[in-house]
Amino acid sequence: MDSTPAADERTSAAIAHWAPRFVSNGIPLHDFTVTTASVHEWSQWCARWVERGRVHEELGDQALTDGHTRSAGEHLRRAALCYHFGAFLFVEHTDEMFAAHAQAVAAYNRALPHLDPPGRRIEIPYQGSHLVGVLRVPDVPAPPPVVVMVAGLDSTKEEMGAYEEHLHQRGLATLAFDGPGQGEAQRHLPMRPDFEVPVGAVVDHLATLPEVAQRVGIYGVSLGGHYVVRATAFEPRIAACASISGSYRVADNWEGRPPMTRAAYRVRAHLASDEATARFVERLDLSGVAGRATAPLYVVAGTADRLTPHTAGIRIADEAAGPTVLDVVEGGNHVVNNMPYRYRPQVADWMNHRLRS
Amino acid sequence: MDSTPAADERTSAAIAHWAPRFVSNGIPLHDFTVTTASVHEWSQWCARWVERGRVHEELGDQALTDGHTRSAGEHLRRAALCYHFGAFLFVEHTDEMFAAHAQAVAAYNRALPHLDPPGRRIEIPYQGSHLVGVLRVPDVPAPPPVVVMVAGLDSTKEEMGAYEEHLHQRGLATLAFDGPGQGEAQRHLPMRPDFEVPVGAVVDHLATLPEVAQRVGIYGVSLGGHYVVRATAFEPRIAACASISGSYRVADNWEGRPPMTRAAYRVRAHLASDEATARFVERLDLSGVAGRATAPLYVVAGTADRLTPHTAGIRIADEAAGPTVLDVVEGGNHVVNNMPYRYRPQVADWMNHRLRS
Repeated sequence: MDSTPAADERTSAAIAHWAPRFVSNGIPLHDFTVTTASVHEWSQWCARWVERGRVHEELGDQALTDGHTRSAGEHLRRAALCYHFGAFLFVEHTDEMFAAHAQAVAAYNRALPHLDPPGRRIEIPYQGSHLVGVLRVPDVPAPPPVVVMVAGLDSTKEEMGAYEEHLHQRGLATLAFDGPGQGEAQRHLPMRPDFEVPVGAVVDHLATLPEVAQRVGIYGVSLGGHYVVRATAFEPRIAACASISGSYRVADNWEGRPPMTRAAYRVRAHLASDEATARFVERLDLSGVAGRATAPLYVVAGTADRLTPHTAGIRIADEAAGPTVLDVVEGGNHVVNNMPYRYRPQVADWMNHRLRS
Repeated sequence: MDSTPAADERTSAAIAHWAPRFVSNGIPLHDFTVTTASVHEWSQWCARWVERGRVHEELGDQALTDGHTRSAGEHLRRAALCYHFGAFLFVEHTDEMFAAHAQAVAAYNRALPHLDPPGRRIEIPYQGSHLVGVLRVPDVPAPPPVVVMVAGLDSTKEEMGAYEEHLHQRGLATLAFDGPGQGEAQRHLPMRPDFEVPVGAVVDHLATLPEVAQRVGIYGVSLGGHYVVRATAFEPRIAACASISGSYRVADNWEGRPPMTRAAYRVRAHLASDEATARFVERLDLSGVAGRATAPLYVVAGTADRLTPHTAGIRIADEAAGPTVLDVVEGGNHVVNNMPYRYRPQVADWMNHRLRS
């Protein structure tokens, strides 16, 4: 007799769709399995992931006590990921979401000095306020080129490590940051379609950092894959751009998106109604924009992407004005997180080549 | 309507039990899922994993063509793992098993120069023949201590990378080798309970290698976790020993083991019958042996281990004569591969400390 209650529809959908992303980005498979199995209704989601994060944070505390700093960095980063995934789409319970997000930031900050390469939290001046980023510079003889990492609707700088590691291995630095509507900026700065503005502030700030070369790439996933094309079109200092599963026009399949996704747009754009949100996303549109991107571009799209049709990637690549690589992965899901080996090393090799030539 | 035929019992058991090991040791979750879903009866197992390995080997070929050697190493290592898991328990079809194993060895050999740290294939003189090992030495100023990596009944040196990486990150070298009954030795050298003999040959050979220090640890998983305790008891040059999910007496729960496991003992011990195999495994017994191990010992055991009861680890730790750490992981499965974060960094920290003090 199985007395486990069945999970509700949203939770079942989560379990079915999110495993590849969670696992490819650093959640151990067992943790994904047992944590999602303990969630019987969506309202429990965040608390369960916070509990799971505590397990890893305690391992990190123990490692610090024992003087094992490398292990501590590893455990604390995993703790941050658990807290992050507790928060990432918990937009209907904002107090709980913000609390879990704050734990993700705190755990990641604790991890940073112990990561390889270490991370440094930096504040980027932005319109009288600031954006927060994490700079990681590998131990190489000369200041290396740097890649700006752009998260999406429900990811944050704390989730970017699994993409970054391929860049670090090739001697590139990374700067992951939370833009308007993302992570640490989400409460005071709403999403904005003209993402070249925050990216411009980031590139301005990079020019003041002696530890990196003035040779800047950009790498965005999901909605970040949309933002980076826009930023590249309007920010001439971007020397190479990787766009992974970015929409061409977010509004095109708006009603077909999961309700949680639409709610996340509403909350992170600081809007009051679904109608206002539907109008807002009309502005997330690369029509007339993609063609202005002249820097080298690498576009990745998955044919099994249920959030962004792979035809969006084809359209971006078709219209881009510079040298473009289009990689449509047969069977790839959103951000092709089911087959990271199909693009993460390849994009890193391409970015490395482009930023050094 | 779902027209997918149900997998047979052995295949279903595989899917249920092996995911944590495969994924924790380097098989992408998606590859595990789609490959096992394509296996409807056990006889297809090996061929499906070989097909999956080809996917990664082709990615490796492409990377080599493009001059992206780091990516090539990553892809070719994944190819080797797929071939290896095709072969690992396919003992009822030895021709196919040996062919897949040969592909695993070949792909791993192709990967070795491109891994970080690179690997070097070495031949270890052994009783008029030789054993094959892979030496990996991180880029550190002075020759580092070295850890001998010991696989189990159905693992080989090609599967040890996921354990090794934690040691490399801490500046330790590793030498993974195929002992009698394992990997490249399985056809011409049967399993032998007195595993201190091959380990002695390995330690003799290490003394001739200038790139490592004469400070040797040993690290074994599953049956390897049994072998290393025996080797430490009789080989005084072993300075520290990590034993993960090793049996105390293999015969104790012999009839309760999966039929494939028992068949693997028969084939790899070069025996003709189940009766002879049952007699042979009586000799895999640490009674009177564990107490002779005086080097520092770290024992890991999982309470949810369905192959080796965690009480075996408790018994080994109780009897060992040197300073011992016993880590019984609540809910840990065999080799605690469901929660690698519970022991892999911790064992690496401990080994590093022990080999440098």
